[in-house]
Amino acid sequence: MSAIPKEFLTKTAELSQAVTRPFPKSNKVYVEGSRPDIRVPMRRIEQDATTARLGLEENPPITVYDTSGPYTDPAAAIDLMRGLPDLRGAWVKERGDSEILAGPSSVYGQERLDDVSLAGLRFEHRRPPRRALAGRNVTQMHYARRGLITPEMEFVAIRENCRLQEMRADPRYAKLLRQQPGQPFGARIPDEITPEFVRAEIAAGRAIIPANINHPELEPAIIGRNFRVKINTNIGNSAVTSSIAEEVEKLVWSCRWGGDTLMDLSTGKNIHETREWILRNSPVPIGTVPIYQALEKVGGKAEELTWEIMRDTLIEQAEQGVDYFTIHAGVLLRYVPLTADRVTGIVSRGGSILAKWCLAHHQENFLYTHFEEICEIMKAYDVAFSLGDGLRPGCLADANDAAQFGELETLGELTRIAWEQDVQVMIEGPGHVPMQMIQENMDKELADCFEAPFYTLGPLVTDIAAGYDHFASGIGAAQIGWYGTAMLCYVTPKEHLGLPNKEDVREGIITYKIAAHAADLAKGFPGAQVRDNAMSKARFEFRWQDQFALGLDPEKAMAFHDETMPHDSHKVAHFCSMCGPHFCSMKITQDVRDYAKSVEEGMRQKSEEFRRQGAEIYKEV
Amino acid sequence: MSAIPKEFLTKTAELSQAVTRPFPKSNKVYVEGSRPDIRVPMRRIEQDATTARLGLEENPPITVYDTSGPYTDPAAAIDLMRGLPDLRGAWVKERGDSEILAGPSSVYGQERLDDVSLAGLRFEHRRPPRRALAGRNVTQMHYARRGLITPEMEFVAIRENCRLQEMRADPRYAKLLRQQPGQPFGARIPDEITPEFVRAEIAAGRAIIPANINHPELEPAIIGRNFRVKINTNIGNSAVTSSIAEEVEKLVWSCRWGGDTLMDLSTGKNIHETREWILRNSPVPIGTVPIYQALEKVGGKAEELTWEIMRDTLIEQAEQGVDYFTIHAGVLLRYVPLTADRVTGIVSRGGSILAKWCLAHHQENFLYTHFEEICEIMKAYDVAFSLGDGLRPGCLADANDAAQFGELETLGELTRIAWEQDVQVMIEGPGHVPMQMIQENMDKELADCFEAPFYTLGPLVTDIAAGYDHFASGIGAAQIGWYGTAMLCYVTPKEHLGLPNKEDVREGIITYKIAAHAADLAKGFPGAQVRDNAMSKARFEFRWQDQFALGLDPEKAMAFHDETMPHDSHKVAHFCSMCGPHFCSMKITQDVRDYAKSVEEGMRQKSEEFRRQGAEIYKEV
Repeated sequence: MSAIPKEFLTKTAELSQAVTRPFPKSNKVYVEGSRPDIRVPMRRIEQDATTARLGLEENPPITVYDTSGPYTDPAAAIDLMRGLPDLRGAWVKERGDSEILAGPSSVYGQERLDDVSLAGLRFEHRRPPRRALAGRNVTQMHYARRGLITPEMEFVAIRENCRLQEMRADPRYAKLLRQQPGQPFGARIPDEITPEFVRAEIAAGRAIIPANINHPELEPAIIGRNFRVKINTNIGNSAVTSSIAEEVEKLVWSCRWGGDTLMDLSTGKNIHETREWILRNSPVPIGTVPIYQALEKVGGKAEELTWEIMRDTLIEQAEQGVDYFTIHAGVLLRYVPLTADRVTGIVSRGGSILAKWCLAHHQENFLYTHFEEICEIMKAYDVAFSLGDGLRPGCLADANDAAQFGELETLGELTRIAWEQDVQVMIEGPGHVPMQMIQENMDKELADCFEAPFYTLGPLVTDIAAGYDHFASGIGAAQIGWYGTAMLCYVTPKEHLGLPNKEDVREGIITYKIAAHAADLAKGFPGAQVRDNAMSKARFEFRWQDQFALGLDPEKAMAFHDETMPHDSHKVAHFCSMCGPHFCSMKITQDVRDYAKSVEEGMRQKSEEFRRQGAEIYKEV
Repeated sequence: MSAIPKEFLTKTAELSQAVTRPFPKSNKVYVEGSRPDIRVPMRRIEQDATTARLGLEENPPITVYDTSGPYTDPAAAIDLMRGLPDLRGAWVKERGDSEILAGPSSVYGQERLDDVSLAGLRFEHRRPPRRALAGRNVTQMHYARRGLITPEMEFVAIRENCRLQEMRADPRYAKLLRQQPGQPFGARIPDEITPEFVRAEIAAGRAIIPANINHPELEPAIIGRNFRVKINTNIGNSAVTSSIAEEVEKLVWSCRWGGDTLMDLSTGKNIHETREWILRNSPVPIGTVPIYQALEKVGGKAEELTWEIMRDTLIEQAEQGVDYFTIHAGVLLRYVPLTADRVTGIVSRGGSILAKWCLAHHQENFLYTHFEEICEIMKAYDVAFSLGDGLRPGCLADANDAAQFGELETLGELTRIAWEQDVQVMIEGPGHVPMQMIQENMDKELADCFEAPFYTLGPLVTDIAAGYDHFASGIGAAQIGWYGTAMLCYVTPKEHLGLPNKEDVREGIITYKIAAHAADLAKGFPGAQVRDNAMSKARFEFRWQDQFALGLDPEKAMAFHDETMPHDSHKVAHFCSMCGPHFCSMKITQDVRDYAKSVEEGMRQKSEEFRRQGAEIYKEV
């Protein structure tokens, strides 16, 4: 028996304190949709008033997109042992196109359930799996193409808007809503995101809502270039380190800091059970790379992989509730030799597994030859494709080469096949690309894959930044996000060197939130600049607490400030530590304004006096 | 009496150990020019051979640009009390156009020298100041325009090339020198940087070598968009914190990690003496903002500033050896009201001081009205202008506005005046600019300022990244560097929050080295990719020690690796901690290559066998 449940009890208690603590000056708010069970969570940041000295003025609250789920809601009872509440179950049920199964329909899933030795590891409150009725299709794309606006679509529309309409109607926000004009390249972002717009984008394949019917805990999010740029984080144990408790903690941590989706890349022991714990506690879409687990089932020998094992793995994971699968169906036999002269060959794990399989069998990639059958599975649960770039470049020297672009063309071909079955698709992208070659990647993806959402890993813009690869890749991420990439897969400072710890995860997430937000601003996403403007005004007015609260990482900002100016009085000081109290440009600017005003006032008085005197003179004359 | 000398003795001993320790696998090398006293320092990184299993192969050393000065040369005797050796004194002297003065010609400089109470603070081994002979001009631009190639110009040409010609002639580098094609926008970078090209660029005003004749310790560096992108770091005490010893330590630290130039922004006590210590120990160009010190001389009251005080301050600092001055001569009276409706007004300290002065006197900025006299001072010592952007935006909302661009046009006018006197000029730029508006800044600077080098602070591409502003600005820095900015002023994680400590400085520098290098790659600077390629090859071949050594921060990379895999055996392990020993894509790729080779070999054997058998069959028939 395992000690994990006890660990979890401890962890649950820890998390309730350490991770559910609210952000400073922030409240969890819910915006209701057209029905009471559509309640979209957001974080509302309260601001102090401008002090009288600077011209007494109320500063209205700023509402921001919130990925943290119930974990930051003081009103929510968090119990990792029970999982999150069922948010979408009723929506799925009322569509009447799916059924509850008696148990797992995958052989492996049933085996794990029957294995008594796993009882101590297993998540207790599992739900039986749900699957589309025979001949039915439960994907959001399927509904969208039939003109149906689902609660999921309405949910993401409200979420993307982030109270923009209310702010526009409120005069207190007039100045804060001023925004620099965007340069959206080909994106066509409307002035207001409506549920109908969401539907149309999903129907066209330009956006996806990864939302497996077996993941009812999910707070839906949309991935598409006419929406806010999203970020993905990766967790996962490997043979070297990590346990279930650590992985769930990383999930909650990732949501707290702003991860929009999360990939569980576990390759070690008990990955079936780990995944269950993660899904049941996850408010964000969960992605996996099923071939990793399939490989474990054949003892790590790529050449022994079969379609049957892969198929059972897909069903096993789909019935647990995984929202998107990375499928490396574009690694074709004929592309493999194109990598032989590369500096770093094949760096994708999935890509190298399949390349090895293809060479061993002298056959075409079985994920490619069975692609239509995979679509059949995807549409029975609404799992979205994340078509994997198994031949992505591992260094600048290999960027944009024949292997990479050949695979991308095949991903386009597969996109069309998936769309014929109304299965949602996004396309994975590089990797390592120097800045001047990034736009070509975006343009080619849009052309070859018919505007399906692009989901890239960075790209890193130099190879010599070991220890700082979150940043080297963040530069490329900001750029490609601006050009139109819908989701950015984060990179931590430990990339290429080791496994990230909690602090690395946080550093990677905030770095990518910056890149994604910079891209939203550059595309001109409506309302994106309101938080920047509020921050700038708070900065100018020395409202330190508001600055901390409005930033992406209030805790770090506060800690940095306190390093130099630890006293509470400094939090209201009209200066900062950079220049000291008597030599501050913000203060001098305020003096300039006051002075300019007094000059103006003086001129007005002089002029009145003159008129008065003049009048008197005239009187006397 | 002060305790500083004792502190320095301790610090000297510490630094000899902590900061002069060589980088792993690295040697200091000197490339000799046309005369023996032109010895250009570089860092040569030795590489291990590729192991037999991966195909035994020698990996040649990689030589990289080195800003660390004598501090990383184990053969150099470092003594902060004596300062660095005189490198350029003979070059200056042999030009015969300057003279050694009996003492400071600034009133304030002489006062400080006469003040016995400062003896304990004062750098002991001062040199008497040197100044151009009456009517002579000692600027690099002056020489360049007369067709003279100075030793300084030859020095920077060798430095920029970084042994590229030798590598090209050596077949071991053939593959490593392969480079992705650049997109240089308007830059025109030659295949080889020659001394004549350097001269022509300086003559045209497209590049500068900040090299005051009173800073003979300097290892010259060139700033221009047809050269490697440089980074500047800032240090300086303020009323709140810091001492002389700390500032000198920061200087050495900054050089160690890659700072190309350094600005001393001190505003506290004893800034004259601090500056002397910094200059005498600095191998990199030093910049200042003289108005800060002038303001201290009038008790912090901007309106009491006079041209006479400013003039004396310029001479004082020029005779100490400051290489470039930020001069906010573009803050014109008529631009000041344009900032009144901004969200963050005037955020430049220099800008707000001068705005206040202009308003107080209802007169035009005295730096503008006395600009020709300032040029006279600059050319007597070869101090370069860094024309300050006192009206730069302090937030996205204020970017690219009338105040900012009005000042930029005036900086262009001043550039022309400076060039009439052969004074070197660079132009300071923003600040805070969203990504889509960055290129307009670069294009306008090139047009309005006649291609004088641009020197920008970031820009930050979002305002909500407090605690991570090094990165929020690094995105903009990489982009504007690519577009043509010659030097990027770094930002640390403490920006907007507090004063940076040593680790913040290192983090800021490496972030900016990444941005600058990414820009070099994007522009297609010849040879820039060789280090990336060597790193990628080392990565593919699991040469961990080479990876650490080739990275921008070997110490951090090694520490990160050791967190997960602490044993020495792991440094030669053919796997890393991310995937464990049995599931590594690099390993699988190698297997794929081996397999492909064996298949090829098998086919060849089969075919030979067939021919042999065939032959036999024919024989038998």
